[in-house]
Amino acid sequence: MNVLIVYTHPNHESLNYAMLQSTLQGLNANNTVNEIKVVDLYADEFNPVLHFNKDKRRRDMHKDPYMEDYRNQIQWADKIVFIYPIWWGRPPAMLMGYIDKLMSTDFAYKDKGGIMPEGLLKGKSVVCISTMNGPKNYPFLFMNNAHKVLMKRAIFNFVGIKAVKFFEFGSAESKKGKQVKYLDTVQNYFGKVG
Amino acid sequence: MNVLIVYTHPNHESLNYAMLQSTLQGLNANNTVNEIKVVDLYADEFNPVLHFNKDKRRRDMHKDPYMEDYRNQIQWADKIVFIYPIWWGRPPAMLMGYIDKLMSTDFAYKDKGGIMPEGLLKGKSVVCISTMNGPKNYPFLFMNNAHKVLMKRAIFNFVGIKAVKFFEFGSAESKKGKQVKYLDTVQNYFGKVG
Repeated sequence: MNVLIVYTHPNHESLNYAMLQSTLQGLNANNTVNEIKVVDLYADEFNPVLHFNKDKRRRDMHKDPYMEDYRNQIQWADKIVFIYPIWWGRPPAMLMGYIDKLMSTDFAYKDKGGIMPEGLLKGKSVVCISTMNGPKNYPFLFMNNAHKVLMKRAIFNFVGIKAVKFFEFGSAESKKGKQVKYLDTVQNYFGKVG
Repeated sequence: MNVLIVYTHPNHESLNYAMLQSTLQGLNANNTVNEIKVVDLYADEFNPVLHFNKDKRRRDMHKDPYMEDYRNQIQWADKIVFIYPIWWGRPPAMLMGYIDKLMSTDFAYKDKGGIMPEGLLKGKSVVCISTMNGPKNYPFLFMNNAHKVLMKRAIFNFVGIKAVKFFEFGSAESKKGKQVKYLDTVQNYFGKVG
């Protein structure tokens, strides 16, 4: 399988960057993996601002040249792994803007006039790896599962991706021992996943 | 009272822009309003990407010169009105990034070592006005109330703002008659609110 990793953190000296390395180590030891590509949105200096108006129509977004490489990566991938911190209960604006610009009509979904559109990214799977500073400060963010609802139902299920797995790691800043355990969990998972 | 409006939509020929006009018309007829300021994040070409690393520490964000005017506007305001479309179950990345960069430690909240930090924006109130293309396509987004949880609990309650009112308008694209009704609702509300 082809695996695309979308990495979103401003600082390479971070638990998120260590998560990226553990993911790669696991995948490199995994016989079912054909090829791995990494997108580092901050290193790419990705512009997350979606513009549209009467000259640049929203319906033409699926042909936006700025997003062409990113669209090709998604189409190429069988499994897409997102690695990001939780800020204010959800991923950073950088990743939200990647979604805003990437998931266009006629690329990610097609409106068929029914209640729900048809997802065009069927058959792919997603893994979301997130870190947060809670539970110390943020336990209430888990209320109603807002982060998972946003990622799974509002984005991935909408574009036809049913298989969505989450790793949510709390107390990301404080406990060194916990971090090592988290990294082992991720490396082991990607060493075996099919 | 001083009212700050934070407007986030790329296109001025939109229902969102009409909402801004109705909000202003209501506020202009309201005797309790002292002054009104409008921030148009797209017109400002606001950069929503939060950077930090070992040279630019996250703990110094509350002194970031780029955000100084935006911080002053928030401190000046008694009521803050957000106007935005719902994309993928939540506001555009542009507004999420404004939150990422604005709501810094020692400006919006203070970590006191307890379970919850102390919100530093107490006494202000918030109104969120959002439009979406559903219910035709997006009813499932209402599940678990993810949009409201993210805005109210994960952001505003966290920084000490308890009074948060929502106007969520569906079928924003299709029905002209509905749009007029929505705009009247908003104008009437802001004509009377204290």
